[in-house]
Amino acid sequence: MQNVKGTYDFFGKEQAVRQKVRAVVQEVFELYAFEGMDSTVLHELDLLTSKYAGGDENLKEMYRFTDQRGRKLGLRYDLTIPFAKVMALNPGIKLPYRRYEIGKVFRDGPVKRGRLREFLQCDADMVGVAGPEAEGELMLIAVEVFKRLDIPVTLRWNNRRFLGEILKAVGVPEEESLSVMLTLDKLEKAGSDGVLEELRNKGITWSTVDEIAELMAMSEPSITLVAERYDLKESKGAAEVYALQALIDKLKLSDICRFDPFLSRGLSFYTGTVYEIFDASGAYASSIGSGGRYDAIIGRLIGSEEMPYPAVGLSFGMESIMEMIRDRVGPAPAPRVVVLSIGDSMIGEALMAAAFLRSNGIQTGMEPAGRKLRKALASLESRSVRYALLIGEEEAQTGKVRLKDMKAREEYVVPLDEALYLLEKNDA
Amino acid sequence: MQNVKGTYDFFGKEQAVRQKVRAVVQEVFELYAFEGMDSTVLHELDLLTSKYAGGDENLKEMYRFTDQRGRKLGLRYDLTIPFAKVMALNPGIKLPYRRYEIGKVFRDGPVKRGRLREFLQCDADMVGVAGPEAEGELMLIAVEVFKRLDIPVTLRWNNRRFLGEILKAVGVPEEESLSVMLTLDKLEKAGSDGVLEELRNKGITWSTVDEIAELMAMSEPSITLVAERYDLKESKGAAEVYALQALIDKLKLSDICRFDPFLSRGLSFYTGTVYEIFDASGAYASSIGSGGRYDAIIGRLIGSEEMPYPAVGLSFGMESIMEMIRDRVGPAPAPRVVVLSIGDSMIGEALMAAAFLRSNGIQTGMEPAGRKLRKALASLESRSVRYALLIGEEEAQTGKVRLKDMKAREEYVVPLDEALYLLEKNDA
Repeated sequence: MQNVKGTYDFFGKEQAVRQKVRAVVQEVFELYAFEGMDSTVLHELDLLTSKYAGGDENLKEMYRFTDQRGRKLGLRYDLTIPFAKVMALNPGIKLPYRRYEIGKVFRDGPVKRGRLREFLQCDADMVGVAGPEAEGELMLIAVEVFKRLDIPVTLRWNNRRFLGEILKAVGVPEEESLSVMLTLDKLEKAGSDGVLEELRNKGITWSTVDEIAELMAMSEPSITLVAERYDLKESKGAAEVYALQALIDKLKLSDICRFDPFLSRGLSFYTGTVYEIFDASGAYASSIGSGGRYDAIIGRLIGSEEMPYPAVGLSFGMESIMEMIRDRVGPAPAPRVVVLSIGDSMIGEALMAAAFLRSNGIQTGMEPAGRKLRKALASLESRSVRYALLIGEEEAQTGKVRLKDMKAREEYVVPLDEALYLLEKNDA
Repeated sequence: MQNVKGTYDFFGKEQAVRQKVRAVVQEVFELYAFEGMDSTVLHELDLLTSKYAGGDENLKEMYRFTDQRGRKLGLRYDLTIPFAKVMALNPGIKLPYRRYEIGKVFRDGPVKRGRLREFLQCDADMVGVAGPEAEGELMLIAVEVFKRLDIPVTLRWNNRRFLGEILKAVGVPEEESLSVMLTLDKLEKAGSDGVLEELRNKGITWSTVDEIAELMAMSEPSITLVAERYDLKESKGAAEVYALQALIDKLKLSDICRFDPFLSRGLSFYTGTVYEIFDASGAYASSIGSGGRYDAIIGRLIGSEEMPYPAVGLSFGMESIMEMIRDRVGPAPAPRVVVLSIGDSMIGEALMAAAFLRSNGIQTGMEPAGRKLRKALASLESRSVRYALLIGEEEAQTGKVRLKDMKAREEYVVPLDEALYLLEKNDA
């Protein structure tokens, strides 16, 4: 027996940290007034393979199957397409609309560090805002989340429209533009030599590839430098880039949010801004979050391209975040107090006492009856449980319990409500 | 475009209620010192179809598929088998062990009210406790959860071993015992006539079926009555039933937790106590929670039947709970305050002001720039947003913001930190 390759069960201290990360992300999303959504995991295959959806790479990695009636289904491979589907199916949702979703997605792809076959994504999306304030808010969210998680990050951003304009200027035919972008997205993985070779193999002319190589060789080229070089200062893409950069400056995010004219993201649905978030120390190479503007999908899914559905999303990957903070995982969480019954006849009293503490908000464990007391206490100490509450016949007859503080090595024989008071007072 | 039959997207006010229910369940599980677990959705088909797993009904309803390498996989149809797998794969986990899991499971079965093809289960399981205190604790949890949800419930319980002894006493051959139990489980759905007919079709003798019919005709037969009728007062099953009833009495749960000698649960893996939770008013007929003791699965999965892994579980179904409290769904949640920028040049200031409020714990929305002010304010009022924070050039120049209290019809032109103070002071 084994787990499916690339899938893991989480429990104990690791799951405790995952739940804390999830709670931090959820709290920030809610502070930013995004509302919770829980979209379906199962989808009609037609939707997931629609040409408006993710693109070739995702289709190859999608789990597909048929149900008992022979309907063709697939598991979601991201949270964006399901969200676009929800918007398309629910025309009553008022715009602007903000939602977040924290849920599992599935990809039958290569497994490596931080990249699993089933993994937890934390997404926030906003529909109905065409201006850069949407990107600005999502960048603020990203900065806030990683500040709270104490992970120093860099967010690299670009604009697909601007990149398209550059590619046109260096001689990439319009119909090859998307394909070239998908190749550029491999820069981190394949290196510049790999990218240039793939471009040549795609039939891009040598002079165009040379121009791209020169651009790639520049370190952190500024927007103005790039725009001037290709005479794009008046273009629509450049205007979007300038507007977002001005907002980033105003929000004092320019140290964290860096313009990168080669960032493209490997997904076909982005139409404007794209961004990826990286470990600022560079120790973890893959992105730990990403997103971008996808103004076209929802309208196309609805079949009404006239009504605009400008949309921006941001996605954090739990697995990548965990890879970065794995060494921070502390001891397994222990209940504050554990109740032990001395003798089988005291089980009911012990359960009642535990229920009383729990209903007063004290996390309380129970030791099963019939275990040797000394052994049970030793096991509690090894789990760093501080308090043991003992209930035996003697105590029960006098209406009292025995509370052992195993850290202070003290013991109190007191009524239960006094034990509760002591537990509350000495709140670790 | 449509959703897969039997699957739903949740958002808005319904999802807000679902998240509250989930938070209540999680809080109670944690107070009872169960730790969080997140087991895999994908499983090797062999595990899910193992004869120790759920049984025929589940196998028929399981989504199956193969991955790119041709491995046979299935989606989990409950949270119990994945948990048993985790225990089997992780022999280092110390017993007694308590975990909870809240996650989606999948069944390609009939769709009806409260029964979907993908649905959210909330499970708590305890391994390593053979005595009735384990069942007692889970019953306390069930009572506490539904008390907090303000849903009056009845928990009906039985014991599979005891039921097996009864069936043997009325002449059911041992090898037919499980099959007869699965038929008895349909009592609610098929009625007693349906059950009796199915028993006859299974080849059970007429005299045995008559005896079962007589027993079914009794209303709430007591343990002693049943035990005496079949001369089972000294049997192992009866002893377990008596012990749990004594504990239930001591815990003062006997009004809620009712013994039912015909309850059997449609799953083959239960070995002792079984229970189902119902709407006490009877308005909602299906169960809203269930569970039982399954002492054999984990040991068998490990392949060591000598080492005992006594285990008890409790499962709540989110969809059934929602069916019961659907009419309580209130208005969609609205942020406490929404920031509006007056004029495009104020977007940065507006985002900064919103970020300030959010970092101080105030849930804050943003209106997109460029909307007519009167229209924007009207839309906020219709969503029951109480406060609007306006930022225009005039305010920005004097370092102030305009806070509109749309309920009290008051307006304050104050520095931002004073607006925060007003928002905190007038906390809804």
